[in-house]
Amino acid sequence: MQLLKDRILSDGKVIGSEILMVDSFLNHQLDVDLFNEMGKEFKRLYEGEEITKILTIEASGIAIAIIAAQYFKVPVVFAKKHVGTNMDEKNYEAEVFSFTKNTLYKIRVSKKYISSTDKVLIIDDFLANGRALLGLSSIVTQAGATVVGAGIVIEKAFQKGRELVESEGIRVESLARIEKMENGKVIFKD
Amino acid sequence: MQLLKDRILSDGKVIGSEILMVDSFLNHQLDVDLFNEMGKEFKRLYEGEEITKILTIEASGIAIAIIAAQYFKVPVVFAKKHVGTNMDEKNYEAEVFSFTKNTLYKIRVSKKYISSTDKVLIIDDFLANGRALLGLSSIVTQAGATVVGAGIVIEKAFQKGRELVESEGIRVESLARIEKMENGKVIFKD
Repeated sequence: MQLLKDRILSDGKVIGSEILMVDSFLNHQLDVDLFNEMGKEFKRLYEGEEITKILTIEASGIAIAIIAAQYFKVPVVFAKKHVGTNMDEKNYEAEVFSFTKNTLYKIRVSKKYISSTDKVLIIDDFLANGRALLGLSSIVTQAGATVVGAGIVIEKAFQKGRELVESEGIRVESLARIEKMENGKVIFKD
Repeated sequence: MQLLKDRILSDGKVIGSEILMVDSFLNHQLDVDLFNEMGKEFKRLYEGEEITKILTIEASGIAIAIIAAQYFKVPVVFAKKHVGTNMDEKNYEAEVFSFTKNTLYKIRVSKKYISSTDKVLIIDDFLANGRALLGLSSIVTQAGATVVGAGIVIEKAFQKGRELVESEGIRVESLARIEKMENGKVIFKD
């Protein structure tokens, strides 16, 4: 998606060869016009597919998912990393290993909000090692529902995420695929 | 806002006299059509006010804020409770006491995303004790910016939040104000 790639080039900040900061428009300050274009693009990529629900994960996935939901006309459910008193006790759970924080954390979705007839599109801001995506996919599978595919904003194509996720038979669509980052610059794949 | 009140009455779940669960449409599963009506209502309530930025707090505030931002045509910034590696180091910070978890936590916003000329609308899902709202307001003040007001989805009017926030000179607009909850029922104020 050219608009997004241009934005990454103009406003993204590369740190070393692994970290891309996009907090000025994607995951701290949010550019709603860009989000709408991304939502339309996810809809175009999954045109013709039956989708009944969008699943994402707090916090950065939520804004992208809810804007995309306007085009798919389906509800959003977000998996919780942090359990409050307002959380139902009957949940699907999955464990996710975070490479950035070097810890294992649990994600949860109430059993009430994914049913076996659901066709689920998983949306997230980044695909790197693919662990969050596999955790979300596991939750969909536990519910007996179907993963239609994943919609990713930025894919670090130099990491193993896509390979891992595709090996589970999950379709992956990314709006921007990064081949590598070097000397403070982003080089996109194709 | 009648649509929201009706939804709370039909789908909200009251636990005791303090807890209202709205996870089926507001803070776990998200009804995007309802969110759009809420966004329009915030715009109507703040019609005529100059607003340059919407500030909210992860996680539940994000979806409401980004949908509302479509009507205000301004960027959203969300305060972070959990700091990752992708967070800038120069932040405005505030401490917030959580009554539900009985702990003090820190919220952070990068100094890059609020400037002294900003006119900020603060959006959140709940107003109860008002501590999160005061924390967000403190961050706006630290930046030398102006708080135009707060847009709240559900106000627990039987708690001290509004009083505390209004005593700081902040305008509060809530889409649904709850006077009390008893015998599993919600009673709205006026």
